[in-house]
Amino acid sequence: MNNFEFANPVKVVFGKGTIARLSALIPAGSRVLMVYGGGSIKKNGIYDQVTNALNGFEVTEFSGIEANPHYETCMKAVDVVKEKNIDFLLAVGGGSVIDATKFIAAAYYYEGEPWDILSKGGVIKKALPLGVVLTLSATGSEMNERSVISRAETREKLNFASPLVFPQFAILDPEVTYSLPARQVANGVVDSFIHVVEQYLTYPVNAKVQDAFSEGLMKVIYEEGLKVLDNPHDYDIRANLMWAATNALNVWIGQGVPQDWSSHRMGYALTAQFGLDHAQTLAILLPGVMTYMFKEKQVKLARMGEVVFGITGGTEEERARQTITACEDFFRRMGLNTRLSECGITENDLDALAAPVDKQGWHLGEHHNIDSKVTRDILLLRL
Amino acid sequence: MNNFEFANPVKVVFGKGTIARLSALIPAGSRVLMVYGGGSIKKNGIYDQVTNALNGFEVTEFSGIEANPHYETCMKAVDVVKEKNIDFLLAVGGGSVIDATKFIAAAYYYEGEPWDILSKGGVIKKALPLGVVLTLSATGSEMNERSVISRAETREKLNFASPLVFPQFAILDPEVTYSLPARQVANGVVDSFIHVVEQYLTYPVNAKVQDAFSEGLMKVIYEEGLKVLDNPHDYDIRANLMWAATNALNVWIGQGVPQDWSSHRMGYALTAQFGLDHAQTLAILLPGVMTYMFKEKQVKLARMGEVVFGITGGTEEERARQTITACEDFFRRMGLNTRLSECGITENDLDALAAPVDKQGWHLGEHHNIDSKVTRDILLLRL
Repeated sequence: MNNFEFANPVKVVFGKGTIARLSALIPAGSRVLMVYGGGSIKKNGIYDQVTNALNGFEVTEFSGIEANPHYETCMKAVDVVKEKNIDFLLAVGGGSVIDATKFIAAAYYYEGEPWDILSKGGVIKKALPLGVVLTLSATGSEMNERSVISRAETREKLNFASPLVFPQFAILDPEVTYSLPARQVANGVVDSFIHVVEQYLTYPVNAKVQDAFSEGLMKVIYEEGLKVLDNPHDYDIRANLMWAATNALNVWIGQGVPQDWSSHRMGYALTAQFGLDHAQTLAILLPGVMTYMFKEKQVKLARMGEVVFGITGGTEEERARQTITACEDFFRRMGLNTRLSECGITENDLDALAAPVDKQGWHLGEHHNIDSKVTRDILLLRL
Repeated sequence: MNNFEFANPVKVVFGKGTIARLSALIPAGSRVLMVYGGGSIKKNGIYDQVTNALNGFEVTEFSGIEANPHYETCMKAVDVVKEKNIDFLLAVGGGSVIDATKFIAAAYYYEGEPWDILSKGGVIKKALPLGVVLTLSATGSEMNERSVISRAETREKLNFASPLVFPQFAILDPEVTYSLPARQVANGVVDSFIHVVEQYLTYPVNAKVQDAFSEGLMKVIYEEGLKVLDNPHDYDIRANLMWAATNALNVWIGQGVPQDWSSHRMGYALTAQFGLDHAQTLAILLPGVMTYMFKEKQVKLARMGEVVFGITGGTEEERARQTITACEDFFRRMGLNTRLSECGITENDLDALAAPVDKQGWHLGEHHNIDSKVTRDILLLRL
């Protein structure tokens, strides 16, 4: 096991009816900015639950956070924070709203151009406190210190992390996910599954606790994921998927082990340039990474196949190959595409898709050997 | 899955050489009370590592914390805190030293008789900050908010919990456990294993993540535990056992599920009245609880047997019975006794051993149906 140093202070408030706990979780007298997306929360009752729970607080609303939240939109929210003298941010949404809220929290105090936080690793010294009411279980952002932001103007998508943007609390009520569209639910299942894969599927360092936790999470997400679309109002399925997705990226399973994240980073360009859903980019790219880095990942691919998919026959190499097929099959059963061509992307697009890896100077993967050339090769495998 | 609300803010600093991180983890200018036990840290080099790392701080030492730390000793430490104007407590030791340090942290600010924190659930409003250098992997106290204290005068052993006594940080260097006596190592293995059992072996509530994590931890502790005594300098075994023991009682696996803890509570009297090691009390009592509460625990006993011990043949009832035998066998292979008679305890002692359950008004177990009479019946099974 590798050395590590980590703390995750997020208070998780999990279960039915927990949105009502809001008034006890936000400091009394706070001037709250309630950040949300396109307004679906007004149709499914979450908006009413939240505003009722915030009775007595001075609340300003900021809606219109996009999927793959825009830097430009976040900066408008920063203006509102200044104007209204806001001192607490409440994200009501999924990963995009939470990520945007984290960026707003950091950008408000940032000296200089806040885009530098993303593009140049600008150091965050202070951030506004924030809380979360989770409405879509997928990214794990509700219990981590990470955020991904896109710039519409330049079609860039970049991430940052800081302990200062850990939410103070995250309210996870599985019932609020009942009304989500199937596409978002399926995306959440695939996204959270691949979060585990990015922290698990590298080379073995004999970290038995982390491996056991990761294998458990993948198995739960796989088995419950295949059930959820046919049973949208099953509380246990929703609850298990929600808690699994949070644990998939609260970053504990990634402590003391090598991590990959190349599918995520390479996927940013697919979203920024072609508007593909984040999970959709991962479902296409992960089998490519598994195939291209087969030798490096063979031992854990075979192990994953046995534990998650029940693949026990054949040599280690054969089982590892079958695991790649089983993953792709899982993503397709969830309704996602797994090929670039299915999304209208051709070989002519590959140079532009690989270019951001070059621009950012990224060397991705647990061996830091995925540059823009390898990125293009992996994309080629996924046409 | 049941509702829950929980945060665990402890920063974990894990790995080789991490004691050197102390000076960066304790606030600059702190007046530190270094709390430790009987002085074994002076023989194995930990004392030197810690004092070197504390160079530049004003440090007062308080040694002599006993196994099953005494209230009386803790109160002497509170006097030193007052006298020296201490503002940071550093526990260097295992569960006893950490538990004592938590009590000192709370007792210092407590208005009234601090014993009330333990005997009457006295509310803690403020506590001194504390950090941990872990030297013995067992109790999980390094990453939780719990503490167990004994009163020598009255032979009582009681516990308390408060979010205010979470350590600020916990340094976990597996190498410091190399020189521990076999008995302490074996106790740590059994103690941490049973911590998981207390949070897992109840009735199913379809909490798949918690169950998967618990099953993973039990399997790691069982498999590595059987290896550690023969391989005391194997870093990976020590590291996996250490991280498993911390996760066994950082209380995340117990969120959203029923918990038992009856073996722990009933065991307090065995320690207080007969001086049995804490883990020794658990190794005797757990098979009794499993047997007496067989019907209530049968489903999860069978599941545990399959996942942890590989018991697959026979009916659910047969597999559940075999699991009890496998647990007892595991504890014996670790060198612990599993019968009261092996520790010189006879039927004449049972009334006195059951009496504290009555005195505290405890109704133990996940069904709250273990009173002093049932306690006596369970003890009778373990003669």
